[in-house]
Amino acid sequence: MNLENLREATRQQMPEKRWKHTLGVVETAIKLAKHFDGDANKAELAALLHDYSKAWAIDRMDVIIREQQLPQELLVYDKELWHAHVGAWAVQSEHGITDEEVLDAIRYHTSGRENMTKLDKIVCLADYIEPGRDFPGVSKIRELAKHNVEEALIAAFDSTIELLMARGKRIFPLTVLARNDLIVQLKQSK
Amino acid sequence: MNLENLREATRQQMPEKRWKHTLGVVETAIKLAKHFDGDANKAELAALLHDYSKAWAIDRMDVIIREQQLPQELLVYDKELWHAHVGAWAVQSEHGITDEEVLDAIRYHTSGRENMTKLDKIVCLADYIEPGRDFPGVSKIRELAKHNVEEALIAAFDSTIELLMARGKRIFPLTVLARNDLIVQLKQSK
Repeated sequence: MNLENLREATRQQMPEKRWKHTLGVVETAIKLAKHFDGDANKAELAALLHDYSKAWAIDRMDVIIREQQLPQELLVYDKELWHAHVGAWAVQSEHGITDEEVLDAIRYHTSGRENMTKLDKIVCLADYIEPGRDFPGVSKIRELAKHNVEEALIAAFDSTIELLMARGKRIFPLTVLARNDLIVQLKQSK
Repeated sequence: MNLENLREATRQQMPEKRWKHTLGVVETAIKLAKHFDGDANKAELAALLHDYSKAWAIDRMDVIIREQQLPQELLVYDKELWHAHVGAWAVQSEHGITDEEVLDAIRYHTSGRENMTKLDKIVCLADYIEPGRDFPGVSKIRELAKHNVEEALIAAFDSTIELLMARGKRIFPLTVLARNDLIVQLKQSK
């Protein structure tokens, strides 16, 4: 699959604002990969595709989650999480993306997971701090991201958990497991 | 087992400050049980015993968790959680308490759990709001507790999660599951 065609196909899945965000994530993911000795090509590809299904209709995603045996627990949690797994399925079935590292980075870019790969971390963090993002705490996360991916990602997950608590919404358990695991990794690395 | 003997035995497990806290939890748990149509006798018993092992040495609790096959995941999480399961084991083996509802309320008074019983909720909430407690947000939780146990308990768990995040510590997954479940219960009751 030619990267230029993939860019065009991805752009067609979403409104202009989401596409602009995608370009910001691509730019940031490449920078992070270079800075933290990651694979910049995979980071670019996963970042380009991370929101492939973000603008898809809920009903369409619901059918895909059920019929394609994606994790069924998604159905009982926030619909904001659906597009990540649906997107990984979509780029595989529509564009023949088979690199499991890239697919996982797409699958877990919103929730995180235990034992996140470097690529998972880069794409997830880039999604939080791309230049277009503006939310309480983002500048602190950007600052941390200059030095330590794990610290930045913990702060990023904290901001999500804060937001969910402030809104009286449930917290996706996998995000807590991801955050707990990053804290252990951070301790072990020091 | 005579309640007066049990009081004396419990008092001997802990320093004066912890005993004062225990009396506060007893008083509050009885009030909550009466207010929310719970079992005041069971609430009194579980509250009296909830911190039975709180002041025990870490090494002693460590041995009990391993040898008595208490949940082994406790060992990898915050030691603050240990006394709850160890305490339930201790009052059963030392004082013949066999009421599973009371034992569960002791076991889960710190972490919470999914499908909390009314007694679980009362003891857990009483532990947060007894008159001696003073932490950011406690007055809001006390106010909520006048009207709705679930809302108060969600706010209480939020305060714990906030604190753990502020300290860069891991969040016990069961607490998140407990909070998520209370949010569902609350929606269903409205």
